[in-house]
Amino acid sequence: MNVALLAHEGFPDRAKTAVGVLRYAEYEVCAVLDREHAGERVRDHLPDVQDAPIVAGIEDVPERVDALVIGIAPIGGDFDERWRPDVRGAIERGCDVLAGLHYFLAEDDEFAALADEHGVELRDLRRPPDDLTVAEGRAREVDADVVLTVGTDCSTGKMTTSAELVAAARERGIDAALVPTGQTGVLIEDWGIVVDRTASDFTAGAVERMVRERGADHDLLVVEGQGSITHPAYSAVTCGILHGAMPDALVLCHEAGREAIHGYEPFAIPPVPEVVSLYEDLAAPVAETTVAAGALNTADLDEGEANRAIIEYATAIDAPATDPVRFDAAELLDALV
Amino acid sequence: MNVALLAHEGFPDRAKTAVGVLRYAEYEVCAVLDREHAGERVRDHLPDVQDAPIVAGIEDVPERVDALVIGIAPIGGDFDERWRPDVRGAIERGCDVLAGLHYFLAEDDEFAALADEHGVELRDLRRPPDDLTVAEGRAREVDADVVLTVGTDCSTGKMTTSAELVAAARERGIDAALVPTGQTGVLIEDWGIVVDRTASDFTAGAVERMVRERGADHDLLVVEGQGSITHPAYSAVTCGILHGAMPDALVLCHEAGREAIHGYEPFAIPPVPEVVSLYEDLAAPVAETTVAAGALNTADLDEGEANRAIIEYATAIDAPATDPVRFDAAELLDALV
Repeated sequence: MNVALLAHEGFPDRAKTAVGVLRYAEYEVCAVLDREHAGERVRDHLPDVQDAPIVAGIEDVPERVDALVIGIAPIGGDFDERWRPDVRGAIERGCDVLAGLHYFLAEDDEFAALADEHGVELRDLRRPPDDLTVAEGRAREVDADVVLTVGTDCSTGKMTTSAELVAAARERGIDAALVPTGQTGVLIEDWGIVVDRTASDFTAGAVERMVRERGADHDLLVVEGQGSITHPAYSAVTCGILHGAMPDALVLCHEAGREAIHGYEPFAIPPVPEVVSLYEDLAAPVAETTVAAGALNTADLDEGEANRAIIEYATAIDAPATDPVRFDAAELLDALV
Repeated sequence: MNVALLAHEGFPDRAKTAVGVLRYAEYEVCAVLDREHAGERVRDHLPDVQDAPIVAGIEDVPERVDALVIGIAPIGGDFDERWRPDVRGAIERGCDVLAGLHYFLAEDDEFAALADEHGVELRDLRRPPDDLTVAEGRAREVDADVVLTVGTDCSTGKMTTSAELVAAARERGIDAALVPTGQTGVLIEDWGIVVDRTASDFTAGAVERMVRERGADHDLLVVEGQGSITHPAYSAVTCGILHGAMPDALVLCHEAGREAIHGYEPFAIPPVPEVVSLYEDLAAPVAETTVAAGALNTADLDEGEANRAIIEYATAIDAPATDPVRFDAAELLDALV
């Protein structure tokens, strides 16, 4: 499938869905829409993912496109009205539109009518299944080993670390699968539930359902975590995933140098050892688990600084650590299986 | 308003919404529907709340009734099909129907058509407002003191303790208000958001919105907690309330003798001091708070046992404790203001 990725004014740093699709999904990306970077190319920003031109709007996407994917996720998950011409234009060209927003495109009167007229599909990835219910506390019954990525904050590399771990495990011949919990993971897997949109009563239940379903068919599950247990807005999601997944082990993801919650700067990230204890202590009443490895995002550091930061981080969490994008995930996998 | 309370096969122990309405709401209850206890009276079970006959079905409700209230909340919040004749009968008699289920009566084709025909309202209290969004981390800005009731499990007396605290504070001339977060509280206050139905991304935001709204008009807010941070299914809700409310103090509610999570018996409730630490440690990154008092449900104990259990509980939580229903909430209030 050919897709265009909408990432206006956000590519690449604030467009983690777009970057995740470029890096891990099987879609062929034929353009990224970002009016601030029009004329540049993806490789100017990200040398290690598939390349594509960056254009100003849907009218500049050169070839036939099957779908427009909304590749940015603003705080609150709203639809930015400045995206409307691109979505409208995509539908008029006969493209499906895939979005992981809290705002459902299929409930937008203009888009719904236009999609109907042009026979295209509006896929709102964040819409939960109708038949969700409460967790039964049974995720531990699966035979598969279950690893959960958790973070000190949002956007610390949980999706990326999860995908890298699955890839590294498969390379070793382990039958591993990702359990996606956010829009990027669901896009990559073309399966899964975006759990932050489920009723909070059903968040753990949604994760448990996915773990039990995938756990029946695989030997290692890597559950994509969300947010942070220390986050003023998103901790409910994090807690529901932690208790719903009942993981055997945790991988703590952190960005080197980040000291405060992104977008909530009055809230400091606690010292990393405290975050480790918090996750382990909170998990314990439902399912004992430990932080068995750490993933550190060192993208902003040079190699020497990165190596020093990783050693310091491994000491702080008292477990092996690396940057699975800069280096690879082998060391993490060693600590987990 | 005259209401009938549906509590089939659950009154009083598994019908906490019915009991909460009988105890705290301003509605006049003219009957409780419970086919297992038909012919008895409320006072046979609960001597200290308003009395009413218990009947087998809506056809036995003697007088004019304004509304039927679904007074039980099964795990999962489903509609029990055995209630259908009573709901149908109520609508046909011209009663509104108030329900706090996850299943929305207004989306049931039969009930919707019938309500339309008879000009009655189906009020689904669990339906969240359309304009919820993520928390901003600003609940601490309110001038009011904010107290949150938390629990070792579901059904440990959080709603009751909250209501008793508000009543005790008002008796002392403190301008106190309840911030309801569940269907019973919302019924009692005729205001509020049932937070377990909100998207988990917005759970903290829903609580923050209520705290900021009520906090502008009152000096003491008592936020009704939900579930438990140790609960395999509902901890997401609990965590969202804890971080959304940013409380100045916590009241830990527990039922004397309960050792495992109700309905999830393989999961032991951790020792009470551990639960105290867990709440305080989890709150700390967002808003420092402490368990400043404890409420112990001693309904199953005689007075001597109750007194001993309360002393033991106060020692375990290292704070003043009482049973605010058996005795009163004055001692808790002393510890909080």
